[in-house]
Amino acid sequence: MDIHQYITQLAEKAKAASYVIANADTQQKNQALYAIAQLLRENEDQLIAANQKDMQSAQEKGLDAALLDRLQLSSKTVSSMAEGLEQIAALPDPVGEMTDFAYRPSGIQIGKMRVPLGVIGIIYESRPNVTADAAALCLKAGNACILRGGSEAIHSNMAIVQLIHQGLQMFRLPENIVSFVEHTDREGVGSMLKLTGLIDVIVPRGGKGLVQRISEEARVPVIKHLDGVCHVYIDEYADMEKARQVAINAKTSRYGTCNTMETLLVHQAVAAKILPVLAQDYQEKQVQLRGDEQVCALLGNSVIPASEEDWYTEYLAPILSIRIVANMNEAIVHINHYGSHHTDSIMTENYTLARQFLRAVDSSSVMVNASTRFADGFEYGLGAEIGISTDKIHARGPVGLEGLTGQKWIVLGDGQIRV
Amino acid sequence: MDIHQYITQLAEKAKAASYVIANADTQQKNQALYAIAQLLRENEDQLIAANQKDMQSAQEKGLDAALLDRLQLSSKTVSSMAEGLEQIAALPDPVGEMTDFAYRPSGIQIGKMRVPLGVIGIIYESRPNVTADAAALCLKAGNACILRGGSEAIHSNMAIVQLIHQGLQMFRLPENIVSFVEHTDREGVGSMLKLTGLIDVIVPRGGKGLVQRISEEARVPVIKHLDGVCHVYIDEYADMEKARQVAINAKTSRYGTCNTMETLLVHQAVAAKILPVLAQDYQEKQVQLRGDEQVCALLGNSVIPASEEDWYTEYLAPILSIRIVANMNEAIVHINHYGSHHTDSIMTENYTLARQFLRAVDSSSVMVNASTRFADGFEYGLGAEIGISTDKIHARGPVGLEGLTGQKWIVLGDGQIRV
Repeated sequence: MDIHQYITQLAEKAKAASYVIANADTQQKNQALYAIAQLLRENEDQLIAANQKDMQSAQEKGLDAALLDRLQLSSKTVSSMAEGLEQIAALPDPVGEMTDFAYRPSGIQIGKMRVPLGVIGIIYESRPNVTADAAALCLKAGNACILRGGSEAIHSNMAIVQLIHQGLQMFRLPENIVSFVEHTDREGVGSMLKLTGLIDVIVPRGGKGLVQRISEEARVPVIKHLDGVCHVYIDEYADMEKARQVAINAKTSRYGTCNTMETLLVHQAVAAKILPVLAQDYQEKQVQLRGDEQVCALLGNSVIPASEEDWYTEYLAPILSIRIVANMNEAIVHINHYGSHHTDSIMTENYTLARQFLRAVDSSSVMVNASTRFADGFEYGLGAEIGISTDKIHARGPVGLEGLTGQKWIVLGDGQIRV
Repeated sequence: MDIHQYITQLAEKAKAASYVIANADTQQKNQALYAIAQLLRENEDQLIAANQKDMQSAQEKGLDAALLDRLQLSSKTVSSMAEGLEQIAALPDPVGEMTDFAYRPSGIQIGKMRVPLGVIGIIYESRPNVTADAAALCLKAGNACILRGGSEAIHSNMAIVQLIHQGLQMFRLPENIVSFVEHTDREGVGSMLKLTGLIDVIVPRGGKGLVQRISEEARVPVIKHLDGVCHVYIDEYADMEKARQVAINAKTSRYGTCNTMETLLVHQAVAAKILPVLAQDYQEKQVQLRGDEQVCALLGNSVIPASEEDWYTEYLAPILSIRIVANMNEAIVHINHYGSHHTDSIMTENYTLARQFLRAVDSSSVMVNASTRFADGFEYGLGAEIGISTDKIHARGPVGLEGLTGQKWIVLGDGQIRV
């Protein structure tokens, strides 16, 4: 059997199982999630032993420290995986929610029901905790999933999946609700991306390279974001102390996250007042500054000239580009042009400008007087997220249980016919 | 300039214009729509003259009667185009609607704002009225659109677009909000389908061949349906008179529409009671019946055996396939397997079975005791529809103004930073 046949058969079984989980009771799903959390805790030693095999072979292959760090399972990470499952079990079940019912002149009554998407393909890299997280989110939202993790985590992932299957069996749910691709040939991913009709949506989790390859090749819809080129715009009517705190937090609280600010825009009327103070703050945190001409003129040696390319760049590093703008409109045009439609924030005390900014900025999250770092499923109250989307259709921004569902129309009648 | 460059430039201008219409006032949009409606009425003679050119060349090419019928503009069709625009103007504006605001523990307040998708590409065949309808729906939902009509309607379409541009100009809206592809080379469609980042979604309107080609080739998301293989399931607890009326209406009120029933499923306990009556009704309407073995045994000469292929087929004709099932579950499995996830209805007076059917059938519209023919934007109260989607993500079923928008997250803070 070749890899394409293998993936197709896996997807067919997942599709069949998706109809079972779509109709499962909330209690049955929650009990399975709690049981899996328990099993993870009880089998910590076994999980860490499996993980050791992966760690050893990764070290032998000379993989880098960051990857080893993402790959490693410890007592702490196993326990936080289990907690994650319990949190997902505690979230309200989105499936079956009925809304917007109204009678129509014909006498039929129309509304919507929230329903699972079907089969979700998750393609990820070295983090074994994604196996448990993603499976749990899909299951709670009534979906089957097909997990395709990185080859470097294969032993860890299979050990986790085995426990998930045990938990499912305990509550008479078919194993194929959580399918796992054991053959990590690159071609298997290609097969998944083309199985329209069997796989309903693909969620890639990992670096930009992975996400880009997948979105270019996929025939199945993909929920994704490629870049997080996030902006903070400090308006002339900003509270300078709030602006300073947010600008520092948005850049320096973590450098590697997609909701980190990469470009700071400052209104010309307040640039001379706030930029020297901020430059000092950033210098203390060893953030390299790159500015436009006006910024360079203002800050002198502490900044280097930014290139056109800089405005498009997600540094994921202690580097920040800064531009002075003539007015808010220039800031909006910059954000919509150079940004990645992820998360952008205005600092202002002016009601009218705040209102205009919220409408005109074309991003998945638009903020007033808050750090871009808040763009996250937990902070937004979704409980957990499967990823962040910068696409325009379906889910935008942090994608939680609701983003893993859709809505169908429900029509209730009394024998009505259309005349 | 080659066709790809031409389309790219058109799309770049449409993208720029999309930011203008996204931020336009409701009143400005409505006034433009009313003005265009007025212009269409006032220039009826000019439109019909332009249409005559198209009709003449279509006749010379020997195109079929159905196409000529779709192509023709008359005083009546012009007036109904104008009415359509006025109805869209009268609908509530979905753009900017803010919902679900709640405070989070961090003190930030999170909610959602409904926003336009950006640039919508509409690819359609010979109906000139789509030019006005689609442009108006996109405009009202705050989107720019790129219209690519069939070559056989080029004079009619250009005459309509010229009036749309006049109406936009009267209210200081840029012409590029409604862009029209004047070069009808087939390659231009290919270019549109690949302009991710400039075109946000493609809506194909036309026959299955067109839709299939577009979905296979597109890199831009497509809102579409391929088939309407709709079912009515007559349950053992159906009211037989309601069931009879709905089964007749769902099949025979129109044969060529996507919400027409193509397969009738009947519970074995009531088949002998209702099928002979229905067979008589269908015979009077000259509907050809194709049945499974049991149906053939029951109805004898008035039915021919159905092949496996029949269960997958959208006849769009006076043909109906009929199957007898052992129970509701068998009906659901049949619908989810052979259907096209469009619209399916159960006839039953049993509360528990109705409730199960609504949840378990995986279609964009699921009905109880109503004719599948109701699956339509007007009947659902959307005012108008740009099409029907059988996809799982984004909009499902009839797609109106809401389906031409998305939601972004809004975060209101007071200087909060993430700790």
